[in-house]
Amino acid sequence: MNSPPKTPLLDTVEYPSDLRRLDQGQLRQLSDELRAEMIDAVSTSGGHLGSGLGVVELTVAIHYVFDTPNDKLVWDVGHQCYPHKIITGRRDRIRTLRQGGGLSGFTKRTESEYDPFGAAHSSTSISAALGFAMAKKMQDRPGRGIAVIGDGAMSAGMAYEAMNNAEQAGNRLVVILNDNDMSIAPPVGGLSAYLARMVSSSEYLGLRSLASRISRKLSRKVHSGLEKAEEFARGMVTGGTLFEELGFYYVGPIDGHNLEHLIPVLENVRDSEQGPVLIHVVTTKGKGYAPAENSADKYHGVPKFDVVTGEKAKSKAGPPAYQNVFGDTLAKLAETDDRICAITAAMPSGTGVDRFAKAHPDRSFDVGIAEQHGVTFAAGLAAQGMRPFAAIYSTFLQRAYDQVVHDVAIQNLPVRFAIDRAGLVGADGSTHAGSFDITYLATLPNFVVMAAADEAELAHMTYTAAEYDEGPIAFRYPRGNGIGVAIPETLEKLPIGKGRVVREGSKVAILSLGARLEEAKKAADQLEAKGLSTTVADMRFAKPLDTALIEKLMRSHEVVVTVEEGAIGGLGAHVLTFASDTGLTDNGLKVRTMRLPDVFQDQDDPMKQYDEAGLNAPQIVDTVLAALRHNSTGVEEARA
Amino acid sequence: MNSPPKTPLLDTVEYPSDLRRLDQGQLRQLSDELRAEMIDAVSTSGGHLGSGLGVVELTVAIHYVFDTPNDKLVWDVGHQCYPHKIITGRRDRIRTLRQGGGLSGFTKRTESEYDPFGAAHSSTSISAALGFAMAKKMQDRPGRGIAVIGDGAMSAGMAYEAMNNAEQAGNRLVVILNDNDMSIAPPVGGLSAYLARMVSSSEYLGLRSLASRISRKLSRKVHSGLEKAEEFARGMVTGGTLFEELGFYYVGPIDGHNLEHLIPVLENVRDSEQGPVLIHVVTTKGKGYAPAENSADKYHGVPKFDVVTGEKAKSKAGPPAYQNVFGDTLAKLAETDDRICAITAAMPSGTGVDRFAKAHPDRSFDVGIAEQHGVTFAAGLAAQGMRPFAAIYSTFLQRAYDQVVHDVAIQNLPVRFAIDRAGLVGADGSTHAGSFDITYLATLPNFVVMAAADEAELAHMTYTAAEYDEGPIAFRYPRGNGIGVAIPETLEKLPIGKGRVVREGSKVAILSLGARLEEAKKAADQLEAKGLSTTVADMRFAKPLDTALIEKLMRSHEVVVTVEEGAIGGLGAHVLTFASDTGLTDNGLKVRTMRLPDVFQDQDDPMKQYDEAGLNAPQIVDTVLAALRHNSTGVEEARA
Repeated sequence: MNSPPKTPLLDTVEYPSDLRRLDQGQLRQLSDELRAEMIDAVSTSGGHLGSGLGVVELTVAIHYVFDTPNDKLVWDVGHQCYPHKIITGRRDRIRTLRQGGGLSGFTKRTESEYDPFGAAHSSTSISAALGFAMAKKMQDRPGRGIAVIGDGAMSAGMAYEAMNNAEQAGNRLVVILNDNDMSIAPPVGGLSAYLARMVSSSEYLGLRSLASRISRKLSRKVHSGLEKAEEFARGMVTGGTLFEELGFYYVGPIDGHNLEHLIPVLENVRDSEQGPVLIHVVTTKGKGYAPAENSADKYHGVPKFDVVTGEKAKSKAGPPAYQNVFGDTLAKLAETDDRICAITAAMPSGTGVDRFAKAHPDRSFDVGIAEQHGVTFAAGLAAQGMRPFAAIYSTFLQRAYDQVVHDVAIQNLPVRFAIDRAGLVGADGSTHAGSFDITYLATLPNFVVMAAADEAELAHMTYTAAEYDEGPIAFRYPRGNGIGVAIPETLEKLPIGKGRVVREGSKVAILSLGARLEEAKKAADQLEAKGLSTTVADMRFAKPLDTALIEKLMRSHEVVVTVEEGAIGGLGAHVLTFASDTGLTDNGLKVRTMRLPDVFQDQDDPMKQYDEAGLNAPQIVDTVLAALRHNSTGVEEARA
Repeated sequence: MNSPPKTPLLDTVEYPSDLRRLDQGQLRQLSDELRAEMIDAVSTSGGHLGSGLGVVELTVAIHYVFDTPNDKLVWDVGHQCYPHKIITGRRDRIRTLRQGGGLSGFTKRTESEYDPFGAAHSSTSISAALGFAMAKKMQDRPGRGIAVIGDGAMSAGMAYEAMNNAEQAGNRLVVILNDNDMSIAPPVGGLSAYLARMVSSSEYLGLRSLASRISRKLSRKVHSGLEKAEEFARGMVTGGTLFEELGFYYVGPIDGHNLEHLIPVLENVRDSEQGPVLIHVVTTKGKGYAPAENSADKYHGVPKFDVVTGEKAKSKAGPPAYQNVFGDTLAKLAETDDRICAITAAMPSGTGVDRFAKAHPDRSFDVGIAEQHGVTFAAGLAAQGMRPFAAIYSTFLQRAYDQVVHDVAIQNLPVRFAIDRAGLVGADGSTHAGSFDITYLATLPNFVVMAAADEAELAHMTYTAAEYDEGPIAFRYPRGNGIGVAIPETLEKLPIGKGRVVREGSKVAILSLGARLEEAKKAADQLEAKGLSTTVADMRFAKPLDTALIEKLMRSHEVVVTVEEGAIGGLGAHVLTFASDTGLTDNGLKVRTMRLPDVFQDQDDPMKQYDEAGLNAPQIVDTVLAALRHNSTGVEEARA
């Protein structure tokens, strides 16, 4: 444990209003203290480090120059917002980041008026900032929208759509492109190469040679002499044609760690009558902390670590992460099947596609933050006879829902969807929870939807998906590590639409889909101890349903409970719909559905989150017991 | 009725192989005949006219030069594919376009090997073509992907994502930008302005001055003399920086109606070793048919018409279209509420936002084909205290699902979603059906989801949404005209989560959501005639459910049937989940859910589609009767 850093100047700054009372000359020291404070905080809490370190000076400069919170500052994604949180009234809670009851790891409207728009998914900031800008304009109120967006986030179509619509905002919109040549993984694609060319070909021109440009670039409200104009124009060079073609005034590239460059440029933009302006700022992810700067991923996300040595707390040894089971299994299958290929949207290690790519680089595609393209690209691959696996987190697959419907499901193309981060995800909270995929996929004709109960099941499902050429097929699995079961050498092609009974009983039947199976089995033990003979089935498929198994269990048990790691509309809804429409429940049967509650749950330990959701063994037991009691009393409260 | 045109040359061309046997000099005549045939066909069937007329020469040139179907030609959206259908073996059915059992109005894989990828939603073509290109490359097979995409479709983020990933395909990918300065409505945004500047600033250079460029632009497999190079290079001018920055070789702009320019340029690109190439082709929507060229929308979509006069068949006078009821109601509400604003994604007249825009131009936003941006932009407007209405078709809202979840629902921002084209839509078929929105929205916490039973209900719901500031609210309504009820002068703020009983009975209860209410009432009449006393409730809300009403009706009726114009996971699933989880159905109750079947339905008359779906009055009656019979026989077949 290191002692907290000394931060005498930072101690005087609780809010941006305090910051603005400082001399510009003091901002260097303040930035250094802010950086030290942030490193210390993340070393004790874990979290996103590299992104925040890269924008310390930018954070200070923006709040110093602009009128936050009246000017609406929107951080894209929000990984980089920790310094912002520290100087907007949340320093006292900064060591609670990403913990239950603590600060969110992202911006969040309910936390602070300095977070006018929450984030977590990439590339939303320009659209939101434009919304603020146009609303202010319609309301005839002062203020603007300011978006800070990374170069990786710029690769998403949504950012382009927003830029394409920006011109109407005039000087009420400022976009700051934070170009660190990194998002979570190294960037891909034409835009990235373009930005690199811009930065490498530009020079920081002398003040005098810049002077003549300013009149062409931006007119200012207050006309100022040549000397002042020169100073304000620092960093403003030619280039930026792509942004200019879309209607922006382009300023940059400028050094994002040099406050003497940043402050005058931001002031110049603030006072400009013209716009929208795009400021191209070049930063270094992990800046100012050697272990981060020297690391390949720039300490994007880290556990607790030792500040002096940079040594990270070791995670407990244990079963492999689900993503790696998927990646390794797919890589192995691809050794004997040259039709298999894999697609990730800027998440190679998060999805395990990095392991596949290492073995099969020519059949691996990282499309950048571009889920829409990724899915339709996969559909094209499938239409040409390949066996593509689109490995996308549940929550990010929402970005490609129309492509899933229109390009994959309607055409019945065999795209395989490997859906990681299904269910609750812990520290990342509600924005990253995989709550809706069962519902939004199982409603689609032609789709097969599976959920893995453990890592062995995941391996079988990966194989099953590879071998299934009849149409789209998805398999979901949780964030984190498996439960420790062995992964069989020989994988099984699971029969489509068939579940498996893992425990036979006679009074209570628990129909489980996915990784709650362990809790269902625990609940069965507890029920047996109370004399209630309990069947547990792993349904494996949300679609097609194993209707024969459901009918059999419904006809032979007194209470049937469905359990799934998803919101309403999934397994429970499909089971009930089948049962009622076929008259199975006409004459009475106690069916209960257990699912994620109708709220967005904040970050916490996943086990606690599932406790809050009511999906652990004790709640399963309670649900069964309440259902059994219901006969005699006739009264039972609704859940959720 | 006009007599069909004489088409002696076209009569010899059933497939592209026939076309390739012609001399290049004959292609002008062929194009003229193809144009005449298409005009005649659409005059008898109705459909999309302007787009196809604009690409007659381009269609002929592509099939003449490239090796379709081995080269995979992907038409974006597909509005423009009628000439393509005529010369790819489907001329004999071209007068069945968009009719039940006839040709689809879009490309469709099941129709022809010349349609390698189906379309209908915008901006998917580059991703799909890239998929074909990369699959061919991995398979080491000859062939490439060719995407033809309009300038309007280029405004969608998905197209940009694909362009950003295109470089890896090299010369296996060809993108043809069909720039007609029109999609369905006039284009918006920075990209459109950029393209216009490119076209207006360029000249068609002489052959000799182009010669020197070709070596810099594209190397060819077969080295040819200067003269040939000149010929091939025709139309190749400077410019195109935006596309070049993203990694393309840019060629253009060239005149898309001049075959003597088109053919050599396409041949040049075909034989190039370098790529990917973007060919910028300038065309005129409606080309060659004066009534279309002179019309504001270039005859984008037309009913049957007289070829000589251009006079369109009048649609029957009747109740107003739902979209216009929405647009007019919103415009009126905005007279006294300056917080109301409206967003459309390139569908101003289809959504009725044109009517709002006419009255309130400063509060109306057409964001182009950019639903993702549109929704988050609306969220930004809402966060700044406006009352934004995002008017987006059900099927297109799928494009913005993540924005709906992440930016609107999680933040509980009061964005109003006016969801047109809910349910089955007739001639546009499965790609445009609004089947899933109840399911994918009602599963989200914080959301209110309504469905209008008729045009008066739509007006009330528009008002209700305007007045509801607590969070997101959506209201869905069908394509087409209302049922003829009067729209009240004074609108009512509907109580959230409350249905209404429109007919009281005692034995059978029909819970209807949305515009099936008329069929439900008809069914009730028929049931009463059989002595079965029937209640009909218009639930109005899929979420929150009117649980008090459901409980009351379930406790007092023998059979309960839910009816909705949506797929599984919607009203029926929510009703069943509530009923089973609260024990309401423990002791037996016959509940049946009627919903869209688990198939993608082809185009047809909407009434026939609903018949096929089993959601008209006779099927409601049958479902009730079968449920009543179920007791005695114990046997009933599942429906879908």
